Amino acid sequence: MSQRFAHGEEHLDHEMTKVEVNLDDMPGEWLGYVMEKLFDCGANDVFYSSIYMKKNRPGVLLQLLCDRTNLDEIKSVLFRETTTLGIRHFPISVHRLARKFYQVETEWGSVTVKQGIHEGKVVENAPEYEDCREIAEKHHVPIKEVYKIVWEKILDHK
Amino acid sequence: MSQRFAHGEEHLDHEMTKVEVNLDDMPGEWLGYVMEKLFDCGANDVFYSSIYMKKNRPGVLLQLLCDRTNLDEIKSVLFRETTTLGIRHFPISVHRLARKFYQVETEWGSVTVKQGIHEGKVVENAPEYEDCREIAEKHHVPIKEVYKIVWEKILDHK
Amino acid sequence: MSQRFAHGEEHLDHEMTKVEVNLDDMPGEWLGYVMEKLFDCGANDVFYSSIYMKKNRPGVLLQLLCDRTNLDEIKSVLFRETTTLGIRHFPISVHRLARKFYQVETEWGSVTVKQGIHEGKVVENAPEYEDCREIAEKHHVPIKEVYKIVWEKILDHK
Amino acid sequence: MSQRFAHGEEHLDHEMTKVEVNLDDMPGEWLGYVMEKLFDCGANDVFYSSIYMKKNRPGVLLQLLCDRTNLDEIKSVLFRETTTLGIRHFPISVHRLARKFYQVETEWGSVTVKQGIHEGKVVENAPEYEDCREIAEKHHVPIKEVYKIVWEKILDHK
Amino acid sequence: MSQRFAHGEEHLDHEMTKVEVNLDDMPGEWLGYVMEKLFDCGANDVFYSSIYMKKNRPGVLLQLLCDRTNLDEIKSVLFRETTTLGIRHFPISVHRLARKFYQVETEWGSVTVKQGIHEGKVVENAPEYEDCREIAEKHHVPIKEVYKIVWEKILDHK
Amino acid sequence: MSQRFAHGEEHLDHEMTKVEVNLDDMPGEWLGYVMEKLFDCGANDVFYSSIYMKKNRPGVLLQLLCDRTNLDEIKSVLFRETTTLGIRHFPISVHRLARKFYQVETEWGSVTVKQGIHEGKVVENAPEYEDCREIAEKHHVPIKEVYKIVWEKILDHK
Repeated sequence: MSQRFAHGEEHLDHEMTKVEVNLDDMPGEWLGYVMEKLFDCGANDVFYSSIYMKKNRPGVLLQLLCDRTNLDEIKSVLFRETTTLGIRHFPISVHRLARKFYQVETEWGSVTVKQGIHEGKVVENAPEYEDCREIAEKHHVPIKEVYKIVWEKILDHK
Repeated sequence: MSQRFAHGEEHLDHEMTKVEVNLDDMPGEWLGYVMEKLFDCGANDVFYSSIYMKKNRPGVLLQLLCDRTNLDEIKSVLFRETTTLGIRHFPISVHRLARKFYQVETEWGSVTVKQGIHEGKVVENAPEYEDCREIAEKHHVPIKEVYKIVWEKILDHK
Repeated sequence: MSQRFAHGEEHLDHEMTKVEVNLDDMPGEWLGYVMEKLFDCGANDVFYSSIYMKKNRPGVLLQLLCDRTNLDEIKSVLFRETTTLGIRHFPISVHRLARKFYQVETEWGSVTVKQGIHEGKVVENAPEYEDCREIAEKHHVPIKEVYKIVWEKILDHK
Repeated sequence: MSQRFAHGEEHLDHEMTKVEVNLDDMPGEWLGYVMEKLFDCGANDVFYSSIYMKKNRPGVLLQLLCDRTNLDEIKSVLFRETTTLGIRHFPISVHRLARKFYQVETEWGSVTVKQGIHEGKVVENAPEYEDCREIAEKHHVPIKEVYKIVWEKILDHK
Repeated sequence: MSQRFAHGEEHLDHEMTKVEVNLDDMPGEWLGYVMEKLFDCGANDVFYSSIYMKKNRPGVLLQLLCDRTNLDEIKSVLFRETTTLGIRHFPISVHRLARKFYQVETEWGSVTVKQGIHEGKVVENAPEYEDCREIAEKHHVPIKEVYKIVWEKILDHK
Repeated sequence: MSQRFAHGEEHLDHEMTKVEVNLDDMPGEWLGYVMEKLFDCGANDVFYSSIYMKKNRPGVLLQLLCDRTNLDEIKSVLFRETTTLGIRHFPISVHRLARKFYQVETEWGSVTVKQGIHEGKVVENAPEYEDCREIAEKHHVPIKEVYKIVWEKILDHK
């Protein structure tokens, strides 16, 4: 993720690149692995969607976001790890909220909450998934219950 | 397609089978070919949809309909041509309309229309795609215009 | 929805039917309308998914659930309102939770909550969407905030 | 929609913006509501597609088109009503046909037709969905029949 | 997976159940977790697909396969971990190939290959993904290269 | 495809355009035909994906890539052959690998292999689908076997 901006401040980042690849000659099994490789070398927001290509082929559209300075490395990973012979990309702006992190306490331990701030107002409080997942796993509580308890603590926190 | 029924009559066919296969280790390129093979050996309604499988794999769900008497042959094609080690299937009923075919004349030639009849009433008049496609191709008319002209002829025909 | 069972009790309903139709010669515009018609005549759980059909056609799979006693009426609607010449269906069981309804009070008015009970234990408390939507609309509160407040009230309610 | 151009004339609008948001921590139920909010504040072409995100999450990609002058307002709605902490956007051009509107008369009343004109030639005649839907609803005619009648009137109109 | 059959033999298992749940009030984030829980308690073939539900909601269809004897446990997990108030299910047959496992040696270590046998003939040789992934990871080889080497060894093995 | 570059050399092409159209009033049947027309007049990478539009409409997003000099012709085809009244487009860069072609010999005849070269290193060897399909068809060999044999020959070739 971009290091040009302190994440404490809301900002508009004009240095990002959207990258797209169409894949029709590569099994889904490999794509799970490729997603990890792409995150490992600094891609943000790697995601797949399903497309219909010529000759009745169900294909996959790989999309990702990366910093302009990281584009060459990402392209090399894509050329090595996928079957594509061509990569599309174009500049894209990203408007990112100011972010703050705080802890809320539950009966099973603390959970980090990521706060999103837009024009000085808190517009989102997102419990960290990994914290909630771990509590659900360890204490055999449904994950939906963990989230609801955390949301209650967030409301109290305000 | 089932030969148990004259297609001139509306009927409920209880001898059909729905077949399903999940595929995550096979490229889309091969699946275009497999679809043809399946139609060739008598499958009806072969279609793909996109599914999300474990380990972040974008996969494909192959579904098809076949006559119960044809199931073994279809399964052999699937085992030979796809990568699956297991095929799911279950009995399914198909309610089919009575069908009649007639011709309508356009300025570019005649088009077959397939009529669907439910409880003695015409509920659908479907121009044959291949006839329309051929006219569009040969006479450089947009395919949407061909269909609209044919629909007009169908309304006159009634 | 089935009238064979009091919804106050958890039960297994073996009288339901799953209905499926493949559509490749009908625009999406009409399908929004058809969904309404199907709900109007008693279908449950009408939904669409996207499929890849022969000849490079992006198609739509219409699925719905209905009571066995209602199947003939549903099929007539499908034959009249869609372009299909064939409808697939098969029996399906539905395990339904016991349901209770109660009200929670928010600063903007009351919201109905639907409770799901499995083997005597409450496993779900679902705020009614229409109540939340109306509050969000009328009081200019983000819908996500309305839900979070309601979930807090649900936790207090227990 | 852009007010820079009379819709009577075909034009290329270079002042539009494409906006994209990835959503994996928000239920579909809320997204139906958000779509309305976005249309209400002037977005064009709001649509969802399904994406596969990290950690086996089925997610939703929200896309919309808006006028550059409206971008800030749209972004505020997205930050308030969705759970996202970041919004992607980029400039996009839109080539819009000249549009004319006229009425055709059916036995059930009149229907507006939107005409698209490219380089001085009519290339599309689109019946207004709301007019057709209302007739279908009120007169208990299948919506597909309403459209076909309207298309016939359009052909006569030419 | 069913213990009724030695996996060394091709067989038709009539004791399986297909389970389906529609979800529109649950974020994708939780669904990644639920998939794990379902595999943990013995479900086979858990997968998601994207559906369009009423009121413009992008929803998720969860499908899974389980042994009939395991159905009650699976249903309890679904009721506890998802937001659904109803679960659909129906019996389904699974035709499973005979399976054999063998090792092939590569320059980076050995890889297990799963062999599928239909009517006494080998129809599939599937390299184990986890073995290939580990080699790719450890030796910094593209995963596609690992698979191709393994396929070559498989051809030699025959 | 762009003629500005010899395909023997890896290059970055900045003269490409991405084109997008949303379609909700056109059946899938016609879209199979339109895909062919678009390839015929020089579009690259035409593909469809499924989108959810307002008023519960399952729609289709048509995307394609074309050379900037070809954009006007592509737009005319889209306006004539689809129902859209507006086309979105934006400039996009394409990074294309150097390509070489060579033949490998199998027991059933020769197959062309397309080689992708990145920074002087071969990163991909793709068997031509049409050659493999023809062999599979003519010699009644599963297409997956044809590919595996060709991959073996490619490994020997190196």
